[in-house]
Amino acid sequence: MKKERMAPFLKDGRGMLLAYDQGLEHGPSTDFDERNVDPAFVMGVASKCGFNGVVFQKGVAERFYDGSVPLIIKLNGKTALPKGEPISRQVCSVEHAASLGAKGVGYTIYLGSSMEAEMLAEFGRIQEEAHDRDLAAIAWVYPRGSAVQNDSSKEIVAYAARLALELGADAAKIKYTGDSESFSWAVKAAAGVKVFMSGGPKAATDEGFLDQVRGVIRAGGTGVAVGRNIWQNDDPAAMSERLKRVVFGT
Amino acid sequence: MKKERMAPFLKDGRGMLLAYDQGLEHGPSTDFDERNVDPAFVMGVASKCGFNGVVFQKGVAERFYDGSVPLIIKLNGKTALPKGEPISRQVCSVEHAASLGAKGVGYTIYLGSSMEAEMLAEFGRIQEEAHDRDLAAIAWVYPRGSAVQNDSSKEIVAYAARLALELGADAAKIKYTGDSESFSWAVKAAAGVKVFMSGGPKAATDEGFLDQVRGVIRAGGTGVAVGRNIWQNDDPAAMSERLKRVVFGT
Amino acid sequence: MKKERMAPFLKDGRGMLLAYDQGLEHGPSTDFDERNVDPAFVMGVASKCGFNGVVFQKGVAERFYDGSVPLIIKLNGKTALPKGEPISRQVCSVEHAASLGAKGVGYTIYLGSSMEAEMLAEFGRIQEEAHDRDLAAIAWVYPRGSAVQNDSSKEIVAYAARLALELGADAAKIKYTGDSESFSWAVKAAAGVKVFMSGGPKAATDEGFLDQVRGVIRAGGTGVAVGRNIWQNDDPAAMSERLKRVVFGT
Amino acid sequence: MKKERMAPFLKDGRGMLLAYDQGLEHGPSTDFDERNVDPAFVMGVASKCGFNGVVFQKGVAERFYDGSVPLIIKLNGKTALPKGEPISRQVCSVEHAASLGAKGVGYTIYLGSSMEAEMLAEFGRIQEEAHDRDLAAIAWVYPRGSAVQNDSSKEIVAYAARLALELGADAAKIKYTGDSESFSWAVKAAAGVKVFMSGGPKAATDEGFLDQVRGVIRAGGTGVAVGRNIWQNDDPAAMSERLKRVVFGT
Amino acid sequence: MKKERMAPFLKDGRGMLLAYDQGLEHGPSTDFDERNVDPAFVMGVASKCGFNGVVFQKGVAERFYDGSVPLIIKLNGKTALPKGEPISRQVCSVEHAASLGAKGVGYTIYLGSSMEAEMLAEFGRIQEEAHDRDLAAIAWVYPRGSAVQNDSSKEIVAYAARLALELGADAAKIKYTGDSESFSWAVKAAAGVKVFMSGGPKAATDEGFLDQVRGVIRAGGTGVAVGRNIWQNDDPAAMSERLKRVVFGT
Repeated sequence: MKKERMAPFLKDGRGMLLAYDQGLEHGPSTDFDERNVDPAFVMGVASKCGFNGVVFQKGVAERFYDGSVPLIIKLNGKTALPKGEPISRQVCSVEHAASLGAKGVGYTIYLGSSMEAEMLAEFGRIQEEAHDRDLAAIAWVYPRGSAVQNDSSKEIVAYAARLALELGADAAKIKYTGDSESFSWAVKAAAGVKVFMSGGPKAATDEGFLDQVRGVIRAGGTGVAVGRNIWQNDDPAAMSERLKRVVFGT
Repeated sequence: MKKERMAPFLKDGRGMLLAYDQGLEHGPSTDFDERNVDPAFVMGVASKCGFNGVVFQKGVAERFYDGSVPLIIKLNGKTALPKGEPISRQVCSVEHAASLGAKGVGYTIYLGSSMEAEMLAEFGRIQEEAHDRDLAAIAWVYPRGSAVQNDSSKEIVAYAARLALELGADAAKIKYTGDSESFSWAVKAAAGVKVFMSGGPKAATDEGFLDQVRGVIRAGGTGVAVGRNIWQNDDPAAMSERLKRVVFGT
Repeated sequence: MKKERMAPFLKDGRGMLLAYDQGLEHGPSTDFDERNVDPAFVMGVASKCGFNGVVFQKGVAERFYDGSVPLIIKLNGKTALPKGEPISRQVCSVEHAASLGAKGVGYTIYLGSSMEAEMLAEFGRIQEEAHDRDLAAIAWVYPRGSAVQNDSSKEIVAYAARLALELGADAAKIKYTGDSESFSWAVKAAAGVKVFMSGGPKAATDEGFLDQVRGVIRAGGTGVAVGRNIWQNDDPAAMSERLKRVVFGT
Repeated sequence: MKKERMAPFLKDGRGMLLAYDQGLEHGPSTDFDERNVDPAFVMGVASKCGFNGVVFQKGVAERFYDGSVPLIIKLNGKTALPKGEPISRQVCSVEHAASLGAKGVGYTIYLGSSMEAEMLAEFGRIQEEAHDRDLAAIAWVYPRGSAVQNDSSKEIVAYAARLALELGADAAKIKYTGDSESFSWAVKAAAGVKVFMSGGPKAATDEGFLDQVRGVIRAGGTGVAVGRNIWQNDDPAAMSERLKRVVFGT
Repeated sequence: MKKERMAPFLKDGRGMLLAYDQGLEHGPSTDFDERNVDPAFVMGVASKCGFNGVVFQKGVAERFYDGSVPLIIKLNGKTALPKGEPISRQVCSVEHAASLGAKGVGYTIYLGSSMEAEMLAEFGRIQEEAHDRDLAAIAWVYPRGSAVQNDSSKEIVAYAARLALELGADAAKIKYTGDSESFSWAVKAAAGVKVFMSGGPKAATDEGFLDQVRGVIRAGGTGVAVGRNIWQNDDPAAMSERLKRVVFGT
């Protein structure tokens, strides 16, 4: 039986993670306002609203991580600016992530990119190094690039989940397919890898977002890695509470 | 005399290997159904149906390998999505494969790809490292790319087999040429390297597939590395039994 | 709380740095005259006019740095000649910079370049190595390349500042947005990373330049990294004195 | 005086080497028949017919080298399939070649290829490593690529020979220019590097081939590295005997 | 004060170096005749005619360097054949150069090439490694590539000289601008880096060449690195004597 390295991020086998790497991936002007541009605010939300983990780039963790919630360091990243086939490379070592107190590391693979091979190889090395240090290796698997028509079809989302399994990830962060039944195929393809839905942009309504999470849980998913739907919300605490009830079924 | 590192995978000089890396190479929706999407099912088939080896990516082995059958870890892999010249890079170290209990490692070389040089060089390093650890180094040699017209002609299949010999592989996994006589040229070109036919997509009829294997054995081949023709079969046990009779001539 | 590695370059939390890497970046004929082509002249200005730090490439530091002012070694650099997407790679090791007495290292990232990934990865390694040696890691973040329309908009300057934060820089050197209010958004995005305005080409009038610096300070910026507006000035000492009054508010 | 690392391959300062890497470079179907596809046959020819050295890729050496003739391991190789500028990369380490009993290593440089820089750099490293282990470093220098009009002109063959000298090779394997006088310019350009003619495809007549070798010897060349003109010959022993008389002038 | 690592190559602060890497850079048929194709001839010229240093690739040094004149090993090199943006990569290690008795190492940077970044980075590493071993690091800086219109304008020659300074070279080998006054700007830009004129092709008249050297010396240059104008001369000894009088003003 594979060791459950996701244990620090789970409660009764479920989990909700607060993601906050959008400052790098999208830029502050796209996603942030005066309140949530401040990492301290988001650290506070993670801490007070019952999240099971928080996701930072190393720079944010070095300044704002307070130890109150298990930490995942994103090891790679890119900005939204360059055109062409997406490539995101390692900007933080596993050793450094561990020194910051991380219990897990995250890495984005752009499934279908013509630069895919570089990311598969880099994640392959990271997975081994992370496990040597007893850290969870979490794969953000996002279908993207000119070869990808639809990044949330049943088929491609299941492919993303399976990729995480094949490469030895402990968890996969993938998009929602739109309905629980099709998403359950991704969960099956993951074959034991913990499946977290990627929260994505703020949904039109809170209820709409929670419905997606319900679909994930019904499909056998582990939970959600959410950012904008929490820290862009007028009342992150209330929204977190509602989310918690969906994820943990309490 | 070169050490026979394929011994763990052979019985009386022949062998049949169960391959299950299609989740990465083709995606789960292309090849899998509700039954065989589960690696435990395939591990069971390998174990109960007399296979001499099973081929997994590291992530599947970490979660599902049970030690009942000798293990081959595929060290590289790619998805089916990117267009252009094929390149597949190392995603698992030889050291890690050994730590999982593997007795052999597999690596795909896309013969004829404009990225060929990278794969030849990487396999060259892997071969030495594998032998240092007493693991068999098995070359999957697939002609592919814009320079390749016909990937199963007598000439190119023999080239694939010879490539495996020249680079020091212990075994080659190559396509069938369509008839035993032409395939025997590939076996001669391999000059002692164990030659396994690549099973390929599920054949129109079971008998058609077995005829191919008969041709391989008649040509002096060692056996077959088969996946879909077993675990997509309604009765993998019966099909494995029929295959065994062909391979081992019992 | 993150260690303040910029302390050697600050007085009461503010600082003014004298930059002199234009010989590499622009060429001597673009920016220099008979006086300031001589690094000894610029070292003298840094020393006598109250600068908190001086920025050199290693070659200049090896010959002209006199220890009178804290030293920042630029670790990468390019010339102005090659066309196409900008890439600047490491030409000096962190270890060598430390051996020259540097208290900080600088690295330029061309935000938006199609070669961005290489620079992010390289800065990521440098940041860790610099901190291991207790040196400040300072990111010059310049939006550039075919994907960049406007390199001084509020949005992109804030993105530059945020990039420095996410990657763990101690300070960011960024362009001015044109007004204090919009620049304050960059300072917020930097979330504690020290923000230095990049001086840029010699302004039409000294007062015009000082107005920019006033805007930076008003926005919460730390100060300015200035070159041409000082050492191209007819009276560097007088101009430095005026600048000092703006930066330190004395 | 430079150490003569070619000594194991020379008799009275001359030598004839049997080359057998065509299985990788051209494919078995281009150059081999039922007899010479078998490396044991070629090893036998090398052994019984008085060759001063035999050239194998590592895989062939591992299985068929019998120690009866000094061994050269080709360290790089490519297949004939990919189009575009030629690149051949290292597939065997110097250390591994030494462990197989090699007294020399070979490496192909495609002079004029747009990928030339990679091969020059790789050979540069190999030369030093080989000499550290007291192995001869032999450069196969073949003009090829879109910049090359004529690969056997006096000028370009001399360039190939000179390249081997400049990079510190112990011997060069180069094409014949067509006549002894022009070839002597290449020998002069090599300035002491042992010059071996590359045998090339089987000549129209045996005598025609031997005439080329006579020209090489008359020009001051060291000998020939021959493959197809021997092991494609109906009577390799007789042909080798004739060749020996030409090379050694006995 | 920076250590003067060029001391072995200087007399009263001036020097003349004999360069002989044209066999690699241009090919033997472009620059050599029956006499000077022989490195022993050129070694003799260096030795008997009072040169302060001789420049060889490692292969030539290994066979012909006799220790009578201080040695500079060129660490990179390319042939004249490939089209496109120029790139020259390291083919000899600093360690190996030192083992051959070199007191300095040379490296060519093609200023303005789109591959410039690779050469800047490689020279950056070499400079540090050379200094660690107390060898002079000499930059051959040649403007070249599609971005370069005129490789001997005052502006670009000064840029080349400055590049050598910024990267920490001990000496720069650059083209002549055509007149002493404009060349003096390059000498100023070099700010203490020893400036050697690159001899270039054999001048129309000896006096014409010596006039260029006079211009260099008058401009404050250190001397000349000359090849063809000496060893293509009918009387190298006489020409060297005339050159010596110009360089050393005796």
